[in-house]
Amino acid sequence: MPTNRIGQSTIVLPGRPRILAGASIAGKKEGEGPLRGDFDQIIEDDLFGEESWEKAESRFQYEAATAAIAKAGLTPAQLDVALGGDLLNQIMAASMAARELHIPFLGLYGACSTMAESLCIASMLVDGGYARHALCTASSHFCTAERQYRFPLEYGCQRPPTAQWTVTGAGSIVVSGDDTRPALCRATHVTIGRIVDMAIKDANNMGAAMAPAAADTLTRHFADTGRSPADYDLILTGDLGRVGHDVLLALMQERGMPLDPTRCTDCGLEIFAPGQDTHCGGSGCGCSAVVLSGHILRRFREGDLRRVLFMATGALLSPTTSQQGESIPGIAHAIALEADA
Amino acid sequence: MPTNRIGQSTIVLPGRPRILAGASIAGKKEGEGPLRGDFDQIIEDDLFGEESWEKAESRFQYEAATAAIAKAGLTPAQLDVALGGDLLNQIMAASMAARELHIPFLGLYGACSTMAESLCIASMLVDGGYARHALCTASSHFCTAERQYRFPLEYGCQRPPTAQWTVTGAGSIVVSGDDTRPALCRATHVTIGRIVDMAIKDANNMGAAMAPAAADTLTRHFADTGRSPADYDLILTGDLGRVGHDVLLALMQERGMPLDPTRCTDCGLEIFAPGQDTHCGGSGCGCSAVVLSGHILRRFREGDLRRVLFMATGALLSPTTSQQGESIPGIAHAIALEADA
Repeated sequence: MPTNRIGQSTIVLPGRPRILAGASIAGKKEGEGPLRGDFDQIIEDDLFGEESWEKAESRFQYEAATAAIAKAGLTPAQLDVALGGDLLNQIMAASMAARELHIPFLGLYGACSTMAESLCIASMLVDGGYARHALCTASSHFCTAERQYRFPLEYGCQRPPTAQWTVTGAGSIVVSGDDTRPALCRATHVTIGRIVDMAIKDANNMGAAMAPAAADTLTRHFADTGRSPADYDLILTGDLGRVGHDVLLALMQERGMPLDPTRCTDCGLEIFAPGQDTHCGGSGCGCSAVVLSGHILRRFREGDLRRVLFMATGALLSPTTSQQGESIPGIAHAIALEADA
Repeated sequence: MPTNRIGQSTIVLPGRPRILAGASIAGKKEGEGPLRGDFDQIIEDDLFGEESWEKAESRFQYEAATAAIAKAGLTPAQLDVALGGDLLNQIMAASMAARELHIPFLGLYGACSTMAESLCIASMLVDGGYARHALCTASSHFCTAERQYRFPLEYGCQRPPTAQWTVTGAGSIVVSGDDTRPALCRATHVTIGRIVDMAIKDANNMGAAMAPAAADTLTRHFADTGRSPADYDLILTGDLGRVGHDVLLALMQERGMPLDPTRCTDCGLEIFAPGQDTHCGGSGCGCSAVVLSGHILRRFREGDLRRVLFMATGALLSPTTSQQGESIPGIAHAIALEADA
């Protein structure tokens, strides 16, 4: 069989699948941040009119998905497959949203790497002609994540300085193989992440737990493609936050592939302003999902970006692994996006 | 771009990816059942030497994966991607196993449909040349599932007649695009499932909740491919159990596509004998994973089967959705397997 692989672990997409559209719906706090102008909708009510935060998170997914499909000029019935996930046990938000969409559904769990994981798989499926149009969606919600992973909100737990703030929001993107449709950008390369675990056990310092996985994927991506950091206008990690971002810069410096801090940033650093009291920045599947679907795709559309490496990171912990004394496995999937020539 | 799609929602795999090998490791009760001779290993200790059932489940995954890789004549480093999941919150068993394997990892959540979901995605990635060798693994464990989804084991809760028994075990399969290697069988078609929810809320009657999704996928598969039930030696559902299996037969009868009960069975019905007191049969991601990896691949090897439609079903509920009054979304992914010509 022919191969679309280069180097050890990177995939080339000869058909350069098209990113047709993206939509992002964010919560109130995110809507007060520096990217507020890039979101399709800002929802002030953290329940989004639903009875529970979990159902609200699912509604964020559904609304982002239907908005992205509409912006792509499609109807849900034209989508061949929807890929998505979230942080909730049994990816409840994604499953319930997919139930309403009636699109063939592949559920994913990659923690906060989910948006990248879904884009990687969708781009390969579209490139290979296994799907004509594919939908990628991910979400998180501050209130569902806090109560599932940490403490009941009512407890008013104090957050340590290394903590990040789970983003409330969902992002959704349509990937297409239809050559007749205009693209915001195109997917060219995929590097699937390996799990890297440097024995960090602090669930309030996930940036440090994920940074080594980001460095591993980045190193493999550069080695496989022959590219260097300078080949990208922007290297955008998912939600390393301040601590994880600094660890990544240090690790890449050590490996002789220093990243230019003016062309390497993290969705968790972009989404909130320093005065918003989120400590190390944003996190959650929704963080990279809304930053990519809103902010980054807008900059592609305006010609401000030509080539971006989007690499969302995930901390594959669960309350059970933490209680059983396990360290936090990190993962990072990368996808290269390029302006349509 | 070219298309590998036929009909509304089925995918053809022109390269016919090879199933090189499968391995199955099962627990004590499964090892006392009618398929005991088909498992690579039977583990009497439900802790598998670990400190917790969750860690034991992860060890089942790891051992099944390494056994499948070895039986395929490969080393872990030769695998381009591992896809897998389980029922645990944040797919803890799969993540921890992938951490030891060091293979690029795509985490999935499809509840008990996971083995089919992973095979569907892996087969497309291999067919398209995006992976040379791919690994698919899924597991479940009676003790982890009971305490997560239902009641603490110590409580000794009485099980209603519609209940199924979560299988303890893991199955792993290597899918390959390497034309020089002998195949047990080959993947030819994929039909990705849509979520179907007929408003069933009883977590002790998941067969009934999943059967309509199985009927939906099956109907679309036949319509797209022009095939009929008679084209398959065996239509093998995942874990519908006795109630769900009977509902599926009734639904397909209603739709004018009656299934021959001698050539349509369910992994949940095969794995335990009636005298084992499991009520409606087996369930869990591990159920279809061990039956396929062990029993079915052995029958392909022996020439007893020529063409099988493997369709694992998933009930996408969570304890949270149940507590919040939600009904159970069902899903079923189908993959057609054919003997090597």
